[in-house]
Amino acid sequence: MTAIQELQGALGAKVSLNETVLEHHSHDEGFHLAAMPDAVVFAESTQDVATTLRICNEHRTPVVAWGVGTSLEGNSTPIYGGVSLDLSRMDKVLRVGPEDLDCTIQPGVRRKQLNEALAEYGLFFPVDPGADASLGGMASTGASGTTTVKYGAMKELVLGLTVVTAAGEIIQTSRRARKTSAGYDLTHLFVGSEGTLGVITELNLRLFGIPEVIAAATMQFPSVRDAVNGVIEVIQFDLDVARIELIDSDAVRVVNAYSNSGLPEQALLLLEFHGSPETVEISIAAVYEVLARHGGTGFTRTTDEGERRRLWQARHDAAIACKAMIPNSRIFSTDVCVPISRLADCIEQTQEDLASENIVGPIVGHVGDGNFHVLLAVNPDNHEAVLVLERFHARLVARALSMEGTCTGEHGIGIGKLQFLIDELGEQTVSVMAQIKRALDPNGILNPGKIIADRFFESIAVR
Amino acid sequence: MTAIQELQGALGAKVSLNETVLEHHSHDEGFHLAAMPDAVVFAESTQDVATTLRICNEHRTPVVAWGVGTSLEGNSTPIYGGVSLDLSRMDKVLRVGPEDLDCTIQPGVRRKQLNEALAEYGLFFPVDPGADASLGGMASTGASGTTTVKYGAMKELVLGLTVVTAAGEIIQTSRRARKTSAGYDLTHLFVGSEGTLGVITELNLRLFGIPEVIAAATMQFPSVRDAVNGVIEVIQFDLDVARIELIDSDAVRVVNAYSNSGLPEQALLLLEFHGSPETVEISIAAVYEVLARHGGTGFTRTTDEGERRRLWQARHDAAIACKAMIPNSRIFSTDVCVPISRLADCIEQTQEDLASENIVGPIVGHVGDGNFHVLLAVNPDNHEAVLVLERFHARLVARALSMEGTCTGEHGIGIGKLQFLIDELGEQTVSVMAQIKRALDPNGILNPGKIIADRFFESIAVR
Repeated sequence: MTAIQELQGALGAKVSLNETVLEHHSHDEGFHLAAMPDAVVFAESTQDVATTLRICNEHRTPVVAWGVGTSLEGNSTPIYGGVSLDLSRMDKVLRVGPEDLDCTIQPGVRRKQLNEALAEYGLFFPVDPGADASLGGMASTGASGTTTVKYGAMKELVLGLTVVTAAGEIIQTSRRARKTSAGYDLTHLFVGSEGTLGVITELNLRLFGIPEVIAAATMQFPSVRDAVNGVIEVIQFDLDVARIELIDSDAVRVVNAYSNSGLPEQALLLLEFHGSPETVEISIAAVYEVLARHGGTGFTRTTDEGERRRLWQARHDAAIACKAMIPNSRIFSTDVCVPISRLADCIEQTQEDLASENIVGPIVGHVGDGNFHVLLAVNPDNHEAVLVLERFHARLVARALSMEGTCTGEHGIGIGKLQFLIDELGEQTVSVMAQIKRALDPNGILNPGKIIADRFFESIAVR
Repeated sequence: MTAIQELQGALGAKVSLNETVLEHHSHDEGFHLAAMPDAVVFAESTQDVATTLRICNEHRTPVVAWGVGTSLEGNSTPIYGGVSLDLSRMDKVLRVGPEDLDCTIQPGVRRKQLNEALAEYGLFFPVDPGADASLGGMASTGASGTTTVKYGAMKELVLGLTVVTAAGEIIQTSRRARKTSAGYDLTHLFVGSEGTLGVITELNLRLFGIPEVIAAATMQFPSVRDAVNGVIEVIQFDLDVARIELIDSDAVRVVNAYSNSGLPEQALLLLEFHGSPETVEISIAAVYEVLARHGGTGFTRTTDEGERRRLWQARHDAAIACKAMIPNSRIFSTDVCVPISRLADCIEQTQEDLASENIVGPIVGHVGDGNFHVLLAVNPDNHEAVLVLERFHARLVARALSMEGTCTGEHGIGIGKLQFLIDELGEQTVSVMAQIKRALDPNGILNPGKIIADRFFESIAVR
C-alpha cells in the first residue's frame, strides 16, 4: 500500500488529490519555483496531524505544513512532492484567558479572525506582518511586523506550543506560566523552524489590552538618512512608539498611484502611539521633538479609526502595488535587518545600488527594528530579470552581513536563502542545526530542502 | 595519557588540582549533595574552552562549566567528577554599543561589574536575580529576577552567543541585528540549557538607558490575597512598573530582624518605577489607585538612591536571613511560577500547607510574573529535616502544575528537579530534549546528570 492509500484509509475525504487543490498548494506568494504535492491532507485535529505524520514517516514521504500560503521564500512549497498538510480547518480559538492575557488557538486561525475574536474581551494580538496569515504559519516563519518595535515578534509572544513530531508523537513544549526555566526551550526551537522539526497544532499566545487611545501620525523628511537618524534617537531614548515605519519617496509614489493616498512624495515616517490619553500625548510630544530636530516636517496626527486604517492599509499595499506594476509577477522578497546604528548606511548604499543598476525598488522598513524590505516583483519566467534581482539581492545580503546584520528579519530562510544562512552564521553553526534536524526527524520527511541545504545531510531517505 | 595530563600539557598552570580549589567547585549555594571535580581548568579564552572540550571529549571526561557558584539546584556541581571549567577569568566587557543598546561580554563578567562598566555610557543591564552571579551562569540557568516584569528575563535579553560545542568547535548563534528569522533559534536553545549542550564563551546582551527617574514605593495589605489581586490588576492594565515584589508578613519579620529595616509586619508590595519625571508620576498615580482599591495602605515612596538601595537590599537579604536562622544550613530552593490568575490561590494554599506542617517558610515573590519563592534553609546533614522539606516541595510543585504552572521560573532544573520536569512536560517532551542532547553531545560529557534524568540515555559513555 502506498502512503496516499494508507492516508485515504485512515482519513478518508480529508485527503484530496484534486488538481486545483494540488496546484493551490504548489507555491506561496514569492517568485520561487512551484512544485506540486502528491496529495493534500486537510487535518481537522491534532490527531489527524499525528496520523498523517506517522504514516508518512513509515513511508518516508515528505510532509509540508500549510497555513494560508502567504510566505515569500518558498517556505511551504513541497519541492520534493509528498503531502501538503493543510491546517486551515484547524481554525478554532480554543480558550481566551483575559486574566492571564493569553489565549490558546489552533494553527489555522488567521490574524484578523483572531483579533475579531479577542475584541469582545478588550484584547488583541499585536503581530502584524501585513498579510492575513495563519498564526501557525507566522510562528513557523518567525514572523514579525509593524508593531514589533513595541510588542515583540512571534518569538517573544508565543508562550507555548503543542507539536506533533516526525514520528507522530504529540508533545507540549511548555505550560502556561509567563516564564519558566524548565529544561530546553523547545518553544523557541519550533518557532521559526518552518515545519522542518515538527508540526504545530496548538499555540499559546501572549495578548495585550486594546489601548485606550491609538493615535497615528506621519512626518516627512528631506532624506532617508534624516528619517532613520531620527528613528535611532527615538529608540535610544526608549520613547514609547507602537509603530515607526519608513517608506521612501519611491514607495510613497507607488502607494499614491495604487491607493490614491495623497501622501507627500518624500521619505516618510508612519507612526502609531498606544496608551492612555495622557501617555500618548507625552509620547507624541517627545517623539515629535526628536524627529523635528532631524528635519522632520509636516507632522499630521489622527485618532480617527478610518483614517488610521487607511494609512496602514496604504503601507501594507506597497508590496501589492509593486507587484501590480509588472504583469504576471510575484514578489521577490528581500528582508535584511541590521543593527540600527548601521541602518541609514545600509539603506543609502542600497538605494545607490538600485540606481546604478536601474532597478525600480521602493523601500519600506520596520526601521525601529533595523529591518527593511526592497519591494521587488518579477515574472518568474523572465529569467534575465530574475537573475538581475538575484545578483542585487546577493549584494544586499552581503552588505547587511558586513554590518553584522541578518539576511532575514522576518520571512525565514525557506529555499530562497539556504546559502545566505551559511554565509551569515558559518558552516559549523548550520551543521549544529543539521544535527538537531537529524535528531528530531531522522528520516528527513519534514519540509525537506528548507532552511538547511541538502549537502548537510549525508543520506536523505526521501530523495 | 589521562585527560588531566593532556590538559596540563596544553594549558599548564590553568589546570588546578589544589584541594581547596576542588572543594570550592564541589557545590553551589543550594542544599544538594556536593561532589568533587577531578580538576579545575581556569579558562582565559574561547580557545582554552575549545581545547578543554576537545581533550575531554576524546577522553569521555565530564566537563561542568562554572561561573560563580550561586546556582541553587546543583546546576554546576560535578556529580560525575571530571573537569570543573571555571570561566571567572573570562571577565572582560568586550564591546559596548550605545547606539544599538547592546554589548558583548565574556561569560565570567558579573552582574554588578557589568553595570559599573555600563554606567559611564548611561546604560544598564536589568536582570537582577539577587546574587552577584556571572552573566554566563545567568544565561545558562535562564535566570530572571525582580525587574523581569518590565524588562524581561535572560531569555528575552540575550541576543546572541558564542558557544563551544562538546567536540570543541566554536559557533556563533546569531549576528547583532535586533531580530532575525535565520534558521533555528540556537540562542534560545543554549540559554537555560545549564551547560549541557555547549559552553557559552561570549554573550551579546540587550541594554537599556538608565532611567531619568527611579522611584521606589511600598504599600501594605491586609492579606497576601489582597496584595496579589492588586498586582493582577496592575498587570492586566499594563501599568508601567519596573519591579513589583511581594513579601509576606513572615518574610517581613525575618528581614526586619536581619537588616533592622523597620518595615511594617504585614503583607507588603515593594515597587519600583522607571521613566521620566512625568511618566513616573502617571504610573505611580495609576498603580496607587489600583492597589488602594485592593486594600493597600501606608503608601511610601522615595527617589533617594540610598533609601532605594536599602529597600532592595532588604528584599534580597531575605534568603540570607532565613539561612542565618539555621546553623550550617544551605538554601532549599523553591521556585514555582503559575499563571497570574492562580497566584493568590497558589500562595494561600502553600501558606496553609506550611502552617499545617509547622514549617517556617517566609514567602517572597516576583508576583508580576506569577513566580514566588518559599524561603527555606536546611542543614544538609539533617536528613529528617531534608525529607520534610522535600515532601513539602513535591506538594508545592504538584499544586503549581495543577494550576498550569511550572516547577521553576528561574532557577533551572539542575539535579534537584529532574522528576518534576517529567511531571511538568511529560515523558515524550523530555525525550525530545534527550534527542537534542544526544545529537549535540553524543558522548554525554557536558554537565552529565543535569536537566534530563539518566534513564533517558540508553548508554552513557562517561558513567
